[in-house]
Parts: sequence; C-alpha cells; structure tokens
Amino acid sequence: MRNAVGREIPDELLTGGREVFQGNAYRDGYTYTKVGPTVRASVMSKETKVVADIRAAIEACGMKDGMTISFHHHFRDGDYIVNQVMQVIRELGLRDITVAASSLGSANDVLAQCIEEGIVTGIQTSGIRGRIGEAVSTGKLKTPAILRTHGGRVRAIECGEVHIDVAFIGASSSDEFGNASGKNGKANCGCLSYSDIDARYADKVVVITDTLVPFPNKPASISCIDVDYVVVVDEIGNPKKIASAAARITDNPRDLKIAEKCAEIMRATPYFKDGFSFQTGVGGPSIATTLFLKKYMEEDGIKMGWIVGGISTPMVELLKEGLIGQLADTQDFDMGAIESLNVTPGHYEVTTSEYANPMNKSAYVDKLDFVVLAALEVDVDFNVNVITGSDGILRGAPGGHPDTANGAKCTIIVAPLVRGRIPTVCDKVVTISTPGESIDILVTEYGVAVNPKRADLIAALDEAGVEHVTIQQLRDKAYSMVGVPDPVQFKDRVVAIMEARDGTILDVVREIKPYSYDG
Amino acid sequence: MRNAVGREIPDELLTGGREVFQGNAYRDGYTYTKVGPTVRASVMSKETKVVADIRAAIEACGMKDGMTISFHHHFRDGDYIVNQVMQVIRELGLRDITVAASSLGSANDVLAQCIEEGIVTGIQTSGIRGRIGEAVSTGKLKTPAILRTHGGRVRAIECGEVHIDVAFIGASSSDEFGNASGKNGKANCGCLSYSDIDARYADKVVVITDTLVPFPNKPASISCIDVDYVVVVDEIGNPKKIASAAARITDNPRDLKIAEKCAEIMRATPYFKDGFSFQTGVGGPSIATTLFLKKYMEEDGIKMGWIVGGISTPMVELLKEGLIGQLADTQDFDMGAIESLNVTPGHYEVTTSEYANPMNKSAYVDKLDFVVLAALEVDVDFNVNVITGSDGILRGAPGGHPDTANGAKCTIIVAPLVRGRIPTVCDKVVTISTPGESIDILVTEYGVAVNPKRADLIAALDEAGVEHVTIQQLRDKAYSMVGVPDPVQFKDRVVAIMEARDGTILDVVREIKPYSYDG
Repeated sequence: MRNAVGREIPDELLTGGREVFQGNAYRDGYTYTKVGPTVRASVMSKETKVVADIRAAIEACGMKDGMTISFHHHFRDGDYIVNQVMQVIRELGLRDITVAASSLGSANDVLAQCIEEGIVTGIQTSGIRGRIGEAVSTGKLKTPAILRTHGGRVRAIECGEVHIDVAFIGASSSDEFGNASGKNGKANCGCLSYSDIDARYADKVVVITDTLVPFPNKPASISCIDVDYVVVVDEIGNPKKIASAAARITDNPRDLKIAEKCAEIMRATPYFKDGFSFQTGVGGPSIATTLFLKKYMEEDGIKMGWIVGGISTPMVELLKEGLIGQLADTQDFDMGAIESLNVTPGHYEVTTSEYANPMNKSAYVDKLDFVVLAALEVDVDFNVNVITGSDGILRGAPGGHPDTANGAKCTIIVAPLVRGRIPTVCDKVVTISTPGESIDILVTEYGVAVNPKRADLIAALDEAGVEHVTIQQLRDKAYSMVGVPDPVQFKDRVVAIMEARDGTILDVVREIKPYSYDG
Repeated sequence: MRNAVGREIPDELLTGGREVFQGNAYRDGYTYTKVGPTVRASVMSKETKVVADIRAAIEACGMKDGMTISFHHHFRDGDYIVNQVMQVIRELGLRDITVAASSLGSANDVLAQCIEEGIVTGIQTSGIRGRIGEAVSTGKLKTPAILRTHGGRVRAIECGEVHIDVAFIGASSSDEFGNASGKNGKANCGCLSYSDIDARYADKVVVITDTLVPFPNKPASISCIDVDYVVVVDEIGNPKKIASAAARITDNPRDLKIAEKCAEIMRATPYFKDGFSFQTGVGGPSIATTLFLKKYMEEDGIKMGWIVGGISTPMVELLKEGLIGQLADTQDFDMGAIESLNVTPGHYEVTTSEYANPMNKSAYVDKLDFVVLAALEVDVDFNVNVITGSDGILRGAPGGHPDTANGAKCTIIVAPLVRGRIPTVCDKVVTISTPGESIDILVTEYGVAVNPKRADLIAALDEAGVEHVTIQQLRDKAYSMVGVPDPVQFKDRVVAIMEARDGTILDVVREIKPYSYDG
C-alpha cells in the first residue's frame, strides 16, 4: 500500500494493527491505554540488590531464549555495557534475543557478530551504524529491524508494541538499591534520559555501574523503585569517546557559511524574539549556528528562553552568560555539558518522553520555535533521509529529527548541496526518515529553499531581503555539479522498517544487492 | 474470616480478590502487572492547555456520574482546591462520585455535605477527620470508605484497584502546558509528592494554579506529559495553615520527657551509628525527638545520613549544620521546609511511590533504621490505632505510619500513657491501623516496653541500662490511673475498611451507635 509520502509499503508488514504513514496529524487526538510492566514486589526490607556479576543478574532475571532486552546509548562511542552483557548472553547460550536499544553505534559492533550467530534475531533502535548497519543491510538479521525516532520509541514501549523483558542500564553511579545517575561516578555520561522509559516499563531492570555510592544516590535519573538488581563492574564506559566528531564545532568554511545563513534566516522570522526556544542536532553546521545566533541576540537585545535536546559546551557557556534561560537536557555531547548538568542553574535533565513522545498529552518539542537539523539527503518534496547512505546501507539515526521537525514552528535543514560526488538535494531520497511536511526551510551553501506550504515564512524572508530559490533549483544545481546519481539497487526483501513517530510505516529499507557496481 | 491480627472481617467484603490480612510479609515477592491510564495523545503542537475555569476543565474531561476523582493534601488545613472543584461538581448536578484523595482534613468539610446529598458516594483516603469522619462513622456514605496508607494508595492505583478518572492537582505554579510545582508561586506548599501517582495514572489530569509562569516551569513535580488541562484560579490555598498544631514542636513537659527517653533508647541500639537514617511523624514528642538526637549525635561524633518523610524547619536546620546528610522530602510541614526544598543542598523531593509503595521493587522506608511514630492507642499485642478516636469516630490517618513501621529496623511508638480519662495502652485497640508485628518499642512517660519478638533490642537496652517493662505492665498502670474504659458501641454495618499496606483487610470500622452514653 502506498503511504502519504508516496512509498510503497508491502502488505505483509501491515499486521497487528500496523498502518502505513498517513501524515503527521493522523493520530492527533488518538485515545489509547498505556500498558504496564509485570513486576515482583519487594514488600519487606532488604539490605541490598547488588549481585555478584552480570551473569548472576541475568540468571536472577530468569532470562530465556526469545526475550527482548534494552540498552541506552548515553556513552555513545565509549559504551562498554552492550559488549559486557552480550558476552555473557553468548556464554549462556541464549538465542533469538531482540535488542531494543535507544540507539546503536560503532561501540556495539559485537551485535553484528551476535546477529550472524543467530543470538540476536531482532533489532529495534534509533541509530544503526558500522558493522550492525552492514549486517542488517546485507540481510543477516532474521527479522526486519525496526527504526524509531526517540519519541517513537517511548510511544512504542508505552503502547505495548515493544515489551522489554530485561533492561540493562549502565549508570555512572548507583546505590545498592539502584538509585542511579549518569554523574557522581568514575565515568560520567550526564543524563540518563533515554533509560527513564526502560526503567519504568521493563519487567526486570538491572543497573550496571562502576561506582557504588551510599543510599540514597541523589539526584538520580533512575529510581530504586524500578530496579531489580545492581551489578558493579570495573568499567562502564569511556566518557572521552562521547564527544564524537559529529558533536564537535565545525571549522569547515562551507559549514560555517551555512550556519551563518541559518542564523540570518532565523532572525528574519517572527519567532526570533525574546524568550524563543531552540534545538539543534549534531554534525556540520548545526552547533555552529548557535554561536552565530549569539551575535544576533546581542544586537537585537533579546535572549533565548530555552534549549532542549542534546547539550554541548557552547550552550552551557551561553547559559552561564545569561543569553539562554534554561537547558532542558536529554543527552550530553561533551565533558563540559556532563559537568554542568544539575550544577549550572537552569541546566537540568528531561526524560525522552518529556522531550519527544508524540503520544503524550504534550512534549517539549511541541513548544519549540526553531529546530536546526542535518540531512544526508533532501528531496524535492522536502523529505529527509538521515538513515541510509548513498550506497543504501544503514548508517544513521532518525533520533529526535522527526520529532523536533514535527514539533517546531520553524524547522530548518542545514546541509551542503553536495558531499563529494553525491548530491544532497535530489529527486527522491533513498529512505524517508522525516516527512517533507515537517520541513520548512533548507539552507545550503548554494542557496536557500522554503517549503511552498509556508507562505508566511516566504513573506518573512522576502521582507528581510533573504534570497531564496525553489528546491528544484537547488536539485538542478546539485545535479549540474556532480551529475544525476544512479539509483541504489536493492533486492526485494525488507530488512528494516522506518517507523514514523506515531508508529505508522514511513518507509522500508531493503536488502542491498552485493557488488552493485555492475547493477 | 479472622485475620492475622485477630479481627473478624465480614465475608461479604472479600470480593474481587480481596483477602484478609495475613501478616506483613504475605505479599513479599508477589508478582503482578501494573495497569496504565487511558490517555488522549497530543501529536501536533498546540499553544496552551489553559482553559477558562474549573467548569470548562471538568466539561472538557467529559466528567460523568459515577466517576472517581482525586486530590492531594499538601495544603493540609489551608487547601482551597477541594471546595472549588466540589462546588462546580454540585452545580453541574453530577452524582455518585468517588473521591480518592491522598488525605482529607478539616479544610475539606464540604465533602461531608456532598456525602449527605449523595453527590459523593465513595471515599478513599488516608486521613479522615472532622465532619467527613462524622458523616462516615454515622453511616451517611453509601459505600464503605477505604482507608489506605500512603504507600498503599500508590499500590492500589498501580494495581488497578483504584482507577482515577480525573485528577485535580492544585499547584503553586504551572506553565501553560502543565509543568507544575509546589513552589515558584504566590501560595507555596513545597513538594507535590502525593500527586505524582495521580498524574501518571489518571485518565485526565487537571492542574489548578494561581500562578502561571513561562514554559518550562522547572523544577517541576508534575510533568506536562501527563497533564490535559490547566486552570488559573485566584487562590489555591493558604500556606500559613499548613503548619497545623500537630506539626509544631511541643513545649509540653510530658512530651519532652518522652522525646528525650526516645532519643536515649535510639542511642542504646546498634543502629545509632554514623550515617543512620531516621523518620518521624508529626504530633507530640515526634519532632522533639529529633532535637534530643542532636545532642547525642554531637556527643558521639556521628551524623545522620538521611531523613525521609514530612519535613519541618528543625530538620532543615540540622541539614544546614551538617548533622544530617540529606532530606528526602515527601511533604512540607512549615514555611521553613517549603522554602528550603530544592534550595538547601541535599533537600529534595521524593515521590510517595519512592517513599513507601510496598509493591515496588523497593522503597525508601525499606532502608530506614529508625522511625518514631505517634499513636492514639496501643494494645498489648503492640497493635496501633491512629484512625478512630476513643468514641469510635473516624478522626485520624494511617498516612505513612504502617509503611514506615513495617520498613524500619527499629520502630518506636511515642505516646502519653493516658490522655485525659482515656488510656493509650489497652487490651484491644478500637481499630488496628498498624499491626503489632511492625512495632518494636513503646515509649511513654511512665515507662518503656519492648516487643518480646525483639530479643536483640531488649538485650541492647539492658546493656545500656535503659529500664523497660512489659506492655501489660504499662496497660495495668494506665488502667489503674483512669479505669478500664467501656467498649465503644457499634452497629453491625461496616462504614470503613482499613486496608493493610498490601491491600489486604487489616480491620473494619463500623457505624457508631448514636447516643451511646446509655449503651
């Protein structure tokens, strides 16, 4: 069945109430009943929940073949938890495990091996990269991977579409009852926002820490009321690897030019006024935009009300300077942000549900004025791809992109017009991860395009003298520079489902044809 | 059927899986599935949830006859919310409403009238006093009131035994999305701990505030993700009335004597060591005990690790002096505590679920070393009554009493041996609100009794030279002073069910016989 963004979704995927994407607003006002976990009550006092090791915790949880387990990705490229847990699962001979992580990256390559060995037969995640992406794209995973937005993951768990049997939560510190934090330890990651929903909805919750502290560990991101077992290991992760290349401020002149243009456009809209709210992703011009905004805020004598989402040091500095009112933090991208959380006044943690769950009674993204986001590809309908590379292989993460794009009053994509020999603006993106109806403006180093549905923004830019062109003109420019790319070649088999934030199917990713150079 | 504390529970109450009390540990390890609310998703952005008034909110919630609504009691005697909401419910002609409050007191007398008029036909609460207690005890309420502990209320909601259709949450401040706090407003009450479970489990949640602040209102006790509507009224309550007589420090010599003895006993136990944890209730010697403890902590060179529960200014002062490590606050008993919350380092809010829910994977009460609690009556089996007066009329609140008494390693009851012509220690309490198996030591101005099951504490007191007698000796002393009281006379009809914290029936309260002076 063809969905609202023109993608053909195989009927065999439309089981168990699953529908094709029908537009952002399709489930607005939808009424549903949340599920709950099955928990074992601890009525009488006990001294501790600490068990000997990960194996003891897995055994105490009664883990069996076919179960679903979960992880968070706050340690990003420095995560040691997934490897430690998967190694024990392999040793125990468990099979047919589904991993429902908030995201997966290069630190979790062990999962690619587990997929090939049949230990892991299901993957549900936001990000999928490196060897895991290759394993899935080449058809090694038994069932289609399910790719969700950050808000969509919370929704899926609360609706019961994902039932987590055992959640493994790496925590920088914990007391012996499981009050756990991403601070106060040897290896700090800051927020544990992604884990909030796992702790509340998993049947069994295991906190894994390398720093045991006296009860009660406060402030805690994870509450002892939800924790079954605590395991102390030597190391849970390497915070230095949290700040990946993607999270650094660019010094690339092209990216800086885009960032400056983006800030100029924001200033030209009616939303650029005292108290405005803002989010930016990571990568390329995104964070740099924040610094260009500073100049305009000072010139116009206004301040930013709040930022939500991933936090990095430049934002903390603007908070300290009084140019931003609050930082509603969902993950920390560098050591400066980690250190600032709960310390700098106005810098606090919000859960991923608060951030972006579309099936809440509201979320922070619903209050956003601006979001500035990256893209691998944008097509002439403003659909964005952040999940598959130009080779068709899974190597990205929708993350909060579709959530914030839907929520913000002004959603801006910043991207270079071409990357090497690959055009960013094209006729048709390989995979749609954010529907074009959510995107308002595209900023490239060769020009700006405004979504025609936003006549108000076109008028605002015209009034401010900001030049813009049609997105078709940007596509033509890109194609004139690098040529029209051959379409990526796929087999029929669906290897991944890209869910819209409301749980409908936005797109599918198919198995790539190996050695596709000759078709 | 006779239960584990010897009370005869009518069989007709044992429906729907309800059982009689079978001892504190009966449901330890019990496995159950939590329920969830039925919510209406807000996928698309909106500007505000503020509606014109309480009537508009009630209508928007689709309130109907027979529904269950809830309130918190953080404003105690200064609450204006219950009256305002019930007045609108009366105007709308709604009938057969069940009020499931965290507690009810003299500020909520309007409910007595609603009971007489048939508007309210069900009451579920911890505290029940004043005209409401009289209305229930004289048989005016259509169904038996259900009295729960603070932890038991959370349990009942999570297990689905109470389903809240609409929660009304009075909040000192809120933004237009419903991020709500007991601070940051005109009339501050401090924590909103009791409301946490209502916000998470009620189908519809209405925040009522007199102070609307910019989004996002942080720190927030109630998150916008759970809030449907926000109403701005002129006044939500009078904070000056929070500090009731019960919450003041006593200057009564008898109470001070008891408090000093209590501190002496605590010091004689093995739990009095650096980092110990402590809770005390309100009333009489309870808070004074904290001040006597200070002296012993200083003499012994030790500090208290943490206090959990209701917080008052003397505790905040000890926190500031460094004699207490942390205050895990569930409600604020005076202006000093309200002002300190989230301001004094180490003074933070915990939810009622974290505090005391027996069906959690753990609660703070499970980690308590000491709790010092009051009693209206204690019998020779150490059973405690804090719910019915000597006239048999409902005028009290189990509150956290049974929760902390079960959890703490050393549970001490402080009470005068007699009150006027009424013996506190007796053969059989009118109503059992906390089972004797939870009580370790009774301290009166005429002597101390240790529960015989605690041979370890008897040995510790003997070693420290603290004199103690049997509880029968204390009863005999009390009876010798004021005589043996005539039993209170009741009709057969059950007007209230006293639930144990695990949901089993601990005792029942029957309709009083009017004009009982002549039998």
